[in-house]
Amino acid sequence: MAAIPQPSATDRMLESLREKARLLRIDSLITTTRAGSGHPTTCLSAADLVSVLFFHTMRFDPRHPDAPGADRFVLSKGHAAPLLYAAQAEAGMYPVGRLATLRQFSSELEGHPTPRVPGVDAATGSLGQGLSVGAGMALSAKRLEKNGVRIYVLLGDGEMAEGNVWEAAAFAAHYGLDNLTAIVDVNALGQSERTMYAHDVEIYRRRFETAGWDAVAIDGHDFAAIVRALDRAFSPELAANGRPQAIVARTEKGHGVSFLADKDGWHGKPVPKDDLPRALAELGPLPPPVEPDSRSYARSIGGPPAAFPQLPPPEYVLGQQVATREAYGRALARIAAVNPRLVAVDADVKNSTFSEYLEKAHAERFFQGYIAEQNMVCVGVGLAARGYTPFVATFACFLTRACDQVRMAAISRSHLKLCGSHCGVSIGEDGPSQMGLEDLAMLRAIPGSTVLYPSDGVSADRLTEALARLPGIGYLRTTRPKTPVLYGGDEKFPVPGFKILRQSPQDRVAVIAAGITLHEALKAHAELAAQAIVARVIDLYSVKPIDAARLATEVRATGGRVITVEDHFAEGGLGEAVFAALAVSGVTVAAARRLAVSGIPHSGTPEELLDAFGISARHITAAAKSLLS
Amino acid sequence: MAAIPQPSATDRMLESLREKARLLRIDSLITTTRAGSGHPTTCLSAADLVSVLFFHTMRFDPRHPDAPGADRFVLSKGHAAPLLYAAQAEAGMYPVGRLATLRQFSSELEGHPTPRVPGVDAATGSLGQGLSVGAGMALSAKRLEKNGVRIYVLLGDGEMAEGNVWEAAAFAAHYGLDNLTAIVDVNALGQSERTMYAHDVEIYRRRFETAGWDAVAIDGHDFAAIVRALDRAFSPELAANGRPQAIVARTEKGHGVSFLADKDGWHGKPVPKDDLPRALAELGPLPPPVEPDSRSYARSIGGPPAAFPQLPPPEYVLGQQVATREAYGRALARIAAVNPRLVAVDADVKNSTFSEYLEKAHAERFFQGYIAEQNMVCVGVGLAARGYTPFVATFACFLTRACDQVRMAAISRSHLKLCGSHCGVSIGEDGPSQMGLEDLAMLRAIPGSTVLYPSDGVSADRLTEALARLPGIGYLRTTRPKTPVLYGGDEKFPVPGFKILRQSPQDRVAVIAAGITLHEALKAHAELAAQAIVARVIDLYSVKPIDAARLATEVRATGGRVITVEDHFAEGGLGEAVFAALAVSGVTVAAARRLAVSGIPHSGTPEELLDAFGISARHITAAAKSLLS
Repeated sequence: MAAIPQPSATDRMLESLREKARLLRIDSLITTTRAGSGHPTTCLSAADLVSVLFFHTMRFDPRHPDAPGADRFVLSKGHAAPLLYAAQAEAGMYPVGRLATLRQFSSELEGHPTPRVPGVDAATGSLGQGLSVGAGMALSAKRLEKNGVRIYVLLGDGEMAEGNVWEAAAFAAHYGLDNLTAIVDVNALGQSERTMYAHDVEIYRRRFETAGWDAVAIDGHDFAAIVRALDRAFSPELAANGRPQAIVARTEKGHGVSFLADKDGWHGKPVPKDDLPRALAELGPLPPPVEPDSRSYARSIGGPPAAFPQLPPPEYVLGQQVATREAYGRALARIAAVNPRLVAVDADVKNSTFSEYLEKAHAERFFQGYIAEQNMVCVGVGLAARGYTPFVATFACFLTRACDQVRMAAISRSHLKLCGSHCGVSIGEDGPSQMGLEDLAMLRAIPGSTVLYPSDGVSADRLTEALARLPGIGYLRTTRPKTPVLYGGDEKFPVPGFKILRQSPQDRVAVIAAGITLHEALKAHAELAAQAIVARVIDLYSVKPIDAARLATEVRATGGRVITVEDHFAEGGLGEAVFAALAVSGVTVAAARRLAVSGIPHSGTPEELLDAFGISARHITAAAKSLLS
Repeated sequence: MAAIPQPSATDRMLESLREKARLLRIDSLITTTRAGSGHPTTCLSAADLVSVLFFHTMRFDPRHPDAPGADRFVLSKGHAAPLLYAAQAEAGMYPVGRLATLRQFSSELEGHPTPRVPGVDAATGSLGQGLSVGAGMALSAKRLEKNGVRIYVLLGDGEMAEGNVWEAAAFAAHYGLDNLTAIVDVNALGQSERTMYAHDVEIYRRRFETAGWDAVAIDGHDFAAIVRALDRAFSPELAANGRPQAIVARTEKGHGVSFLADKDGWHGKPVPKDDLPRALAELGPLPPPVEPDSRSYARSIGGPPAAFPQLPPPEYVLGQQVATREAYGRALARIAAVNPRLVAVDADVKNSTFSEYLEKAHAERFFQGYIAEQNMVCVGVGLAARGYTPFVATFACFLTRACDQVRMAAISRSHLKLCGSHCGVSIGEDGPSQMGLEDLAMLRAIPGSTVLYPSDGVSADRLTEALARLPGIGYLRTTRPKTPVLYGGDEKFPVPGFKILRQSPQDRVAVIAAGITLHEALKAHAELAAQAIVARVIDLYSVKPIDAARLATEVRATGGRVITVEDHFAEGGLGEAVFAALAVSGVTVAAARRLAVSGIPHSGTPEELLDAFGISARHITAAAKSLLS
């Protein structure tokens, strides 16, 4: 009697992964058709990859997906959210019935993933950022936590055109992040047409390899190949070889359904209701129906960054010449001494932003990000997702390079802190390309952000400390030139809040400034006083949130006459913040001037430029006199 | 008698190039020391490369450096500006004596180059953008002008970490820009420490090669090698082979002066006055002194984009449902029919932004930029520098990816036009990552920008046309959902300006809106009218510039009661623009509400989200009633 051949353990495993992938495809199709929108075909291309990741490779307890030792998954191609949710539900993180709420107003299962969903560390959906976020998390796991956690990032081929991806690739290799795996789903179809390289997986593979990665190309619908590629990370040749791992998978968009597979025109379109049975029929028997589950499984997010003890006052003396950027660097080192969670990343300007003070004090908590601001910001988001308090710094103008990444950091509910140095025309001779003149507009327009703008060494120190304690995106704007210390070390700087530096009961105009222009306002105060005009001088160090109620009181006390003056363009800056706050607070502004930089500045000395662009003491004095004439 | 060996013609050429490089080094050292700031060592590393470019390779008439047939040079590593100016002066574009004004307030020779300087097409100094600008110019020369002009871009190795560079590399290869040469000055020193790859020229060379370039690595101080590498572009094997050319040059920062060469700590520092003679002595005999030249050689820049005939009115009918984004696409095609200079670039969303209408009508003037917004914007700057009127489009939120590039476009005095579609929460189910909610803040804070926000098909058409005629950076904000046509085809939309859609002598509150919220304001008007409350409804389609004087009149006419409502975050948006304008116009705002999106939105239907985030008709009605109570 011949023995009936038994399936091997491997065959059984592959069969079970194939079955899971089939369920993920079915879930993805049904939920998007029900929602009436979404991207099912991009789910179908990646379903086999995700099946192996979730049901074979990744180590996590579905009941505790956010446990410190759990492997992490970043869906960089965020529009495949239905696939992610299907995998999470099929893995048992929440009931499959919850998937029926996809894209509904009340559901945490949004059109693109956010950390409202358990197991999700960062919002994705602006493409090309996930690998950087994953690199930040891998950096944390390897260099700070040292806990063996692996990070898996799934990318689409379309997003490989984003430079941010290649910044991340270089960074991950440089830091030897062999606990990071990138899987590229090369389905060859973008939103509007074929991608630049269509199914040329070899070009992606070579690029990763050139960047210093261990890179293989596979058939992304061959389960044995996927398993082999993912298992390779644990092979003796690869484990801890200091190279991140890239798996470039050739796939078909819409794979598994003949009328979707590799067809143009299906991006971002659910299968019409009438066509759904035909699509599902191709995927084999349906699983038993489940009850819709209307409970929310949203993760509670937010909460403040790691707490740390009160710091002693900084040791600056009144009148001492200190650049706020240097005080920022010193503050980082001071905080780091008592807060082991504080880390910093810089973009090759640590000797200008003074991040280098942290490096000198705690080299293991400083990371050189080189000239790649997008990656720097996303790495910060990754570090924050692991419970650290990251400060990322560069020139204020170069933070604009990462505007989209900061935007996404807010949607990630990240506690990322940013420092932008060299703000405004007061940097002088280097010229406009190096001047941050729109950073307040950019950072104020981030939901929940805190935007602080110190004028002296003491406030720079104390506001850096304040940011390290505050939740959400925080921004510190620092100045290149040295300015005299205005405050005693014991001064408190509540957020929101402002300081009144000059006042009298006879004040006839309020001059509201911050940073370098506060010092111009103080000069103007003296000039005006010599002409018997008394002005109230306000240091609006907390640009956002703004203490509108107290500000209203001060403006009323000066007869509703206000001058704002800022080393920033007029739009979105301190002046607009003030005037909008006053308007909605019901303050009658009797007369106002908004002094701000207009036009395109150029090179010159700081003094020449402050004056030429209308924000020097002379202009404040003239504005006050014209308001009162 | 033995013949004395005579130097060959090649030897003489190399000797003359060596001598020019020596002068460029001397000029760079002297001018930065005199200025007291600047980056001489980065000039010294690239001096030999620039000498060969300017005095051997590039075809241009120094008396007419901006002639249409002249080869172009883009100094991506903008901090080497003193070297550029030295090369231009030594080539005869202006007197060498002019170099003495480097970095002075009155000089066009700024710390980083801008197009104020003849021969400069784009501002540089924010690193990693020059190759994209060069690619845009090369695209124009090859595909539109077809004139054989070659573009040379000099990059530093530090900036190779910027993803933008690799977006450009992929784009240039994809479009077969064999008229583009990138030269990388690998001096191995960044600002604050060694670069990631130090002197590993091979890694850069392989990356270019993998991206589809013809790439060689050379010694950047070997004149014969530099000449050979640059000449290679004209060799039979390379000429018009469809591959851009990369030359990766190993150099020494500070080359030529022993105490600067390859030394850390010299970035961005001029040689101290006392050490200058010692540095110059190493460079050999000084050229005869020249008289300082205080004349300005600034190029006259600005002027409007290419003119084109008046268009007939668009054929929309009142009440017709038209998405402004679709009207934008139709307008592009309409303009292109009469304006051969109109071109468009898109980031793989042409079927969402409706750029595809231009592609369908004039495929040769549409360029697919794939998902690489930074490169897209810089390519636009390059196209504009060649006299085209480029419209670049993607989702409004993804324009934030290129915030720094738009900032630099303004410093370049570019006539770049941007369209951001899918603004605000009204996009619905896709969720916050896809919602443009900070684009008004970003684009308003660009000096000289025009920011237009149409509410219907007719205004979208006419405002697109307006942008195509206006100088400077222009932005059109479009909406995903269809909205009813409000205006007749003959309506005029002056910039600045606004429309009053509802008014009566009894109006007690002004509701100022644009885009989707204008339609909510009209609904609110009807609701309020039913309760005998009359409101003035204003369509503020020109958000910047804002017609402050006329707006003041309207607000005064409604008793100083104002409501602004916008599908944007509160900061830097329409509301702040209005309140700041009113404050500085001396209008007494009696009572005001600013309705804007607050917090982080999520998925839902457009209607749910407009209501949940406080900007629906219901909220406007409630705000009006509370203002009047």
